Amino acid sequence: MEKSRMMKTAVLILLAVGIMMIPPPEGLSPTAWKIFAIYISAILGIVLKPFSEPVILLVAIASSSLLLGNLNSILRSGYGSTTTWLVLCAFSFSAAFIKTDLGKRVAYVLVGKLASSTLGMGYVLAFLEFIIAPVTPSGTARSGGIVFPIANSAAVALNSEPGSTARRAGSYFMISLWCSAKTSAYLFLTALAPNALAAKLCFDISKVEVGWFKWFIAASVPGILMLLLIPFLVYLVHKPELAKIDGKSISEVGLKELGPMKSSEKILAGIFILALSGWMFGGILKIGATEVAIVAMCLCLLSNVLTWDDILKAKGGWSTFIWYGGIIGLAAVLSGAKFFEWLAPRIGAFIPPALSGYTALLIIVGLSVVVRYFFASGAAYTASLLPVFLTVGFTCGAPQGALVLALLFSNCYGGVVTHYGGAQGPIIFGAGYLDVKPWWTVGGIIAAVTYCVQMSLGVAWWKFLGYY
Amino acid sequence: MEKSRMMKTAVLILLAVGIMMIPPPEGLSPTAWKIFAIYISAILGIVLKPFSEPVILLVAIASSSLLLGNLNSILRSGYGSTTTWLVLCAFSFSAAFIKTDLGKRVAYVLVGKLASSTLGMGYVLAFLEFIIAPVTPSGTARSGGIVFPIANSAAVALNSEPGSTARRAGSYFMISLWCSAKTSAYLFLTALAPNALAAKLCFDISKVEVGWFKWFIAASVPGILMLLLIPFLVYLVHKPELAKIDGKSISEVGLKELGPMKSSEKILAGIFILALSGWMFGGILKIGATEVAIVAMCLCLLSNVLTWDDILKAKGGWSTFIWYGGIIGLAAVLSGAKFFEWLAPRIGAFIPPALSGYTALLIIVGLSVVVRYFFASGAAYTASLLPVFLTVGFTCGAPQGALVLALLFSNCYGGVVTHYGGAQGPIIFGAGYLDVKPWWTVGGIIAAVTYCVQMSLGVAWWKFLGYY
Repeated sequence: MEKSRMMKTAVLILLAVGIMMIPPPEGLSPTAWKIFAIYISAILGIVLKPFSEPVILLVAIASSSLLLGNLNSILRSGYGSTTTWLVLCAFSFSAAFIKTDLGKRVAYVLVGKLASSTLGMGYVLAFLEFIIAPVTPSGTARSGGIVFPIANSAAVALNSEPGSTARRAGSYFMISLWCSAKTSAYLFLTALAPNALAAKLCFDISKVEVGWFKWFIAASVPGILMLLLIPFLVYLVHKPELAKIDGKSISEVGLKELGPMKSSEKILAGIFILALSGWMFGGILKIGATEVAIVAMCLCLLSNVLTWDDILKAKGGWSTFIWYGGIIGLAAVLSGAKFFEWLAPRIGAFIPPALSGYTALLIIVGLSVVVRYFFASGAAYTASLLPVFLTVGFTCGAPQGALVLALLFSNCYGGVVTHYGGAQGPIIFGAGYLDVKPWWTVGGIIAAVTYCVQMSLGVAWWKFLGYY
Repeated sequence: MEKSRMMKTAVLILLAVGIMMIPPPEGLSPTAWKIFAIYISAILGIVLKPFSEPVILLVAIASSSLLLGNLNSILRSGYGSTTTWLVLCAFSFSAAFIKTDLGKRVAYVLVGKLASSTLGMGYVLAFLEFIIAPVTPSGTARSGGIVFPIANSAAVALNSEPGSTARRAGSYFMISLWCSAKTSAYLFLTALAPNALAAKLCFDISKVEVGWFKWFIAASVPGILMLLLIPFLVYLVHKPELAKIDGKSISEVGLKELGPMKSSEKILAGIFILALSGWMFGGILKIGATEVAIVAMCLCLLSNVLTWDDILKAKGGWSTFIWYGGIIGLAAVLSGAKFFEWLAPRIGAFIPPALSGYTALLIIVGLSVVVRYFFASGAAYTASLLPVFLTVGFTCGAPQGALVLALLFSNCYGGVVTHYGGAQGPIIFGAGYLDVKPWWTVGGIIAAVTYCVQMSLGVAWWKFLGYY
């Protein structure tokens, strides 16, 4: 084993063993304390990454089942969970979008219609993220596999490449795409893998249920406003040298390469509309989001849009399934051992009694955005700090429904500041159009504006909807 | 879609819809009847295979959850089941044996020590199957990936190839290997994917629990006797032209090619012994078989014997996980809807009252061996007919414990007659050393002898152990 990996592994083992050596704090059962030790060490494992996420979680499950004999509960809560399956099924959609080239085609059509300026191209990228987001929980697949190549090829076609010509157009496209990606990610429950995890944890702790439709409605007003603002705001802060561009010819070249629309694309478009309708109206039809996703996945398979081998090859889906189910399973046993019930009053004791209501909401959500900066992995943040912020918020008297929604969304836009704050980050940043400095500046501004919009317009909208 | 696939799909849909159109028989709930329709159509789907097994099961799950709203129960019983996970984890072992070449090395060492005659080589193949069986539930991986290449290269080294020279040695090696493979498959719970499924179904229906240790002990006496008999019996019936061979030089060439033993092989050997001990003494240590398997898998990952990518690439494991969990989940909801409770007295009514006890055991197990011939897929047989044979047997008064064990084992050796009766079949038969006729003759003899041994020595052994 290489040295750094060995060091990291040692840190994780020491952390878990160290916590277990300390007697459990008063009021907490020894079982809860041991699960906590394993859980926290697993989360730190996701951050340090001596091994990939699924391995970390499998080791955590193995340790917990050996020490506490709770394998059955973990497997049932984790891998028998509809949340975990929702993500696995939705991953197959990402594979279908890439395989059929439907994503690219939509992109090039939009470029032809809207991209007569660099600003227009910014809107094309935002709009594209928005359209594909509901069915692609994988940032790597959506931004990395579909939208980024479009942005990149448009930049190259405009003679803007990493280096001295980056500022002509490419750097604007990239940073605007990144901000749009982090925004579209909180517009739909199915737009980011940790979203469903966050909703599940929130429900376990607060019993406030946020399903697909409620999520979208709550996020829609502040989210769509931000999507409309972002290309323009980024344009103001990080102006490209080119203004007018010839989107039509970029579009023509791209569409010519794709050839006429294939039947697989048409079928996928149909399944896409069906899935969206299912999620939209599932509440009325009494069909859950996972049922919709599994039916959509089966339709892709039966119509040969995807073969089973395509799904086996979409390794990201399987890896996510494993670490995801592991986190959900461990969190469920932790919650079942009354850990969060124990935690709440103890954190509450540290909070000034004057703090309450809307002020508490402002402070806690603000904190969540700041802290999110330090997490490369949205999943690690979600699994470790979301429950804590929630618990603290409730203790301070922040309005429950609003706190849940605000924290669900801040997990996504909180990551906009860093170039590693999401799976797309390394791809977009790695293309080399931008340094860290503009990334931080633009990301910081967008995060701040989103926070203000969420805390004013968003909160008012949720009040209007009766969500709190 | 190609025509035959479309036809098959139509048959499956018609079957399910047709059954649902008939009103449920008296005493059975409409829910149970609908699940039955989906279940039986899924099993037929595994036989007809218009799509691969996981797709069939996913479609069945999707249909059931849309019609009956039972997705949650299916996922929890199926994919939250330790049985399903046992198989997924054990698959990683198969991958490790192939990746590290440990399997090959053991094989060549045995060839050098024991194969001074063709008969000796027959024993080497049987012994090899026996050694690797406990950790390789995949017939494709064990016989196809490890043992078959050895048998094949030994035959080629002896100038015995498909065609006129096949009878020199190759055809004997192949058919003897096949019979040994079908025998080692029932020696361990973890030696064949459907074994754990069968044990789970038996437990759901009869509450007779057969864990890893009990399985091995019950199977050991009749099974090991058969493994000792098979190379010799096959030698009598299908005698190779060569008698003496030079195993030493085959071994030397093979071992030279492998080079010195790698550290990954040594580590794997250690994990192998640990897993075996865990399964052997799990009962005393209160550690379940799945716990052992998941720990072993984690050790392979932590020690870099396997990377996570190796596990992702072992596609057979993921496919099995999906169809396996699907069958277990559907069977659980079917059983939960009291289908088998309803079925038992109704089948009982057809059985002559004179039939009982040991006679009933003889007839039912005999029937199970004959019927197994028609199933290419052990899983399809297990999921569809095992519960029926069990139910009928109980109704006839066959001794419970003995019936369960005899039916668990007959699923494996019942498949020995056909060249498609198991995953290894197509590989070994496909090598071209044998026609169908000798396959049938030898397979038929071995199946008959095994049946006699099981029904005499086996039954006595289980009585001695107090298992019934």
